Amino acid sequence: MKIIEGGVTAAKGYQASSAAAGIKYEGRTDMALVYTEKPAVCAGTFTTNVVKAAPVIWDKEIVEQGGLVHAVVLNSGIANACTGEAGRAMNYYMAEVVADQFDIQPGQVLTASTGVIGMQLEKEPLAKGAAILKENLADSIQAGLDAAKAIMTTDTVPKQAAVSFEVNGVTVTVGGMSKGSGMIHPNMATMLSVTTTDAVISHEDLQELISEVVKDSFNMISVDRDTSTNDTYLVLANGESGVTIKKGTPEYEEFREALKYVSVSLAKQMAADGEGCTKLLEVQVVHCENKDKAVVLSKSVITSNLVKTAVFGSDANWGRILCALGYAGVDFDPEKVDLILQAEGKDDIILVKDGMATGYSEEEATELLSQEKVVVICDMNEGEAEATAWGCDLTHEYVTINGDYRS
Amino acid sequence: MKIIEGGVTAAKGYQASSAAAGIKYEGRTDMALVYTEKPAVCAGTFTTNVVKAAPVIWDKEIVEQGGLVHAVVLNSGIANACTGEAGRAMNYYMAEVVADQFDIQPGQVLTASTGVIGMQLEKEPLAKGAAILKENLADSIQAGLDAAKAIMTTDTVPKQAAVSFEVNGVTVTVGGMSKGSGMIHPNMATMLSVTTTDAVISHEDLQELISEVVKDSFNMISVDRDTSTNDTYLVLANGESGVTIKKGTPEYEEFREALKYVSVSLAKQMAADGEGCTKLLEVQVVHCENKDKAVVLSKSVITSNLVKTAVFGSDANWGRILCALGYAGVDFDPEKVDLILQAEGKDDIILVKDGMATGYSEEEATELLSQEKVVVICDMNEGEAEATAWGCDLTHEYVTINGDYRS
Repeated sequence: MKIIEGGVTAAKGYQASSAAAGIKYEGRTDMALVYTEKPAVCAGTFTTNVVKAAPVIWDKEIVEQGGLVHAVVLNSGIANACTGEAGRAMNYYMAEVVADQFDIQPGQVLTASTGVIGMQLEKEPLAKGAAILKENLADSIQAGLDAAKAIMTTDTVPKQAAVSFEVNGVTVTVGGMSKGSGMIHPNMATMLSVTTTDAVISHEDLQELISEVVKDSFNMISVDRDTSTNDTYLVLANGESGVTIKKGTPEYEEFREALKYVSVSLAKQMAADGEGCTKLLEVQVVHCENKDKAVVLSKSVITSNLVKTAVFGSDANWGRILCALGYAGVDFDPEKVDLILQAEGKDDIILVKDGMATGYSEEEATELLSQEKVVVICDMNEGEAEATAWGCDLTHEYVTINGDYRS
Repeated sequence: MKIIEGGVTAAKGYQASSAAAGIKYEGRTDMALVYTEKPAVCAGTFTTNVVKAAPVIWDKEIVEQGGLVHAVVLNSGIANACTGEAGRAMNYYMAEVVADQFDIQPGQVLTASTGVIGMQLEKEPLAKGAAILKENLADSIQAGLDAAKAIMTTDTVPKQAAVSFEVNGVTVTVGGMSKGSGMIHPNMATMLSVTTTDAVISHEDLQELISEVVKDSFNMISVDRDTSTNDTYLVLANGESGVTIKKGTPEYEEFREALKYVSVSLAKQMAADGEGCTKLLEVQVVHCENKDKAVVLSKSVITSNLVKTAVFGSDANWGRILCALGYAGVDFDPEKVDLILQAEGKDDIILVKDGMATGYSEEEATELLSQEKVVVICDMNEGEAEATAWGCDLTHEYVTINGDYRS
């Protein structure tokens, strides 16, 4: 597997574009399109929030019916959530104006929206945007990047990842983009993410694979423990490489690794770009009794406001880490737990051994916690299972951003 | 029932005191004592955190055995949690030095600690403090207030409440104190709270009553969704009033109401004094299918960082409220939900009707949200059950306090 440049246009046969449609703000791109001439098998996972945005309801139906699609159209600015029947009609309109541009059916266009909840989209910008999206369509790396930029809200950087591998000398590529910075605590999916591949794969196999992959990637990040109404992870496979990926083959394993690399990379990029954050926090729970427990424990630490503020302040307040493990809702022996800090270019620091403080240097711990990426290892010393979760620190800037998001 | 002045010394036969023992800081009181000459029946509820502080383990055993007690000794500065065998020995020592002052058994002294997790208490300050506590003991309102002040950590105000009622012309009093400002998401108990009463009541009835009362009071507040290792709610009944409280009598109902008033009042005082907060937030879920569901929904809204920051910014971002209801983990019809804002001296504002925005004025909503106490009513329009939760806004100051708590 080779890490390559680009995102949704990396795989064969995909084009992308962006448009400044004036959805909510003027002077910024706010619509994006991913298009494949050859119809693609699609799979997706969606928010578990009871309140589901109109595009989530739309995509879910298309994905579950195993439909073939040509396009994904996305907009930022307005989330089209809590908008009732009118919102669902507007979502159909968004699919329809794109379909008209390509002379395809609305049911062959997936949709995704992100932004303020509760506002209604308007027809005019959508129609105008669809025409620009068609006009700007290109298969270049730049076009993929433009699309990734157009779906940003409070994100500070666009998020892309791509890899390729070879099967009998033929290249198979998997590339994706995502957005997400606040209201990030995905459950069965992430904010918005579109991944494309030129592999030949059945709808069933693709769905099974991505449902597995999200568990170790998008479902393991949290910025603020708020699961969005719009979480959507879509994967398109148009088969342009001609390489068939079938269960039980070595190619299948390679494809799984490729999908996993792209989704973990995108997930980590989102956690690292959490609203207002200054650091990426990685929590590894190791030597745990079983995987489910490791997942619960790692997520409990990554979502603790007290851990997140301590990391912001570069304060090795390990008591809060042990406390967050303790209220996770699973049982363990606190007097078996070791806590270790890790950062690139620094020696590991053992903060806690058998549930109690070691004689570590607070000064060295503060120095390590001042790095841009900090790893906390929670060694439960009770088994062989492990899980890794990603999040970020909680800062003044997070409060500033969210105290007045809608204006 | 009459609301009266005071706290733990309001009921007959109780004395209290504080001492500047130098537990962690110099120049502030950091030990408190509640004492009753006549031994008291006691009941308690404690943290559900797997990581339990030494005093929690100690109290739990005494309470479960139905022991009679003379005193509760509390300290701030160091939480005596994650301190292993040495911490448990030090907790015994704390009970012992107090017991020695009164010539009673250590097993008749309940303990409670709050402050930094992981540090060990030292013998000298504890011994010195115990002597001062004995010397300062008084049954005055001031003595109760001094005790309430000594257990504060990041609290900005002491927290007390007391009520009395009459049974055949004889007064029965219930009064309490508590502390708590951060790491507040009690589960089966709150941070530290001691309530005293002069009622005559059996251990079993008292325990049953308080286990019920915490469900509507301490268990319904959250500052930061972090359940502490030290949560302790103790109630002492020394019988000094001579009034017997028995199940199935009108007095029992009056006593329950008195206990509930004091615990709800203390809980609300804690939420209103949440670390760095500027506002008390009350979330009422009404017309819900059942009580359990109403509890889950109200707590989901009260703990959402995005709701909390929007309240800080006086931004009526109702989409976040609906979103937080949606990810609570229970089912409902989003298109039936109404959301209403309430504040003293302001007209109610209906933000959402049947899951969609009304034509409310953003200006008026911002004005209402600028008040010191804000009520959000989530009307589920599906049944008759309801629940109320209390919390606070999330501010820059919270981040400042918790970025560097230990220094």
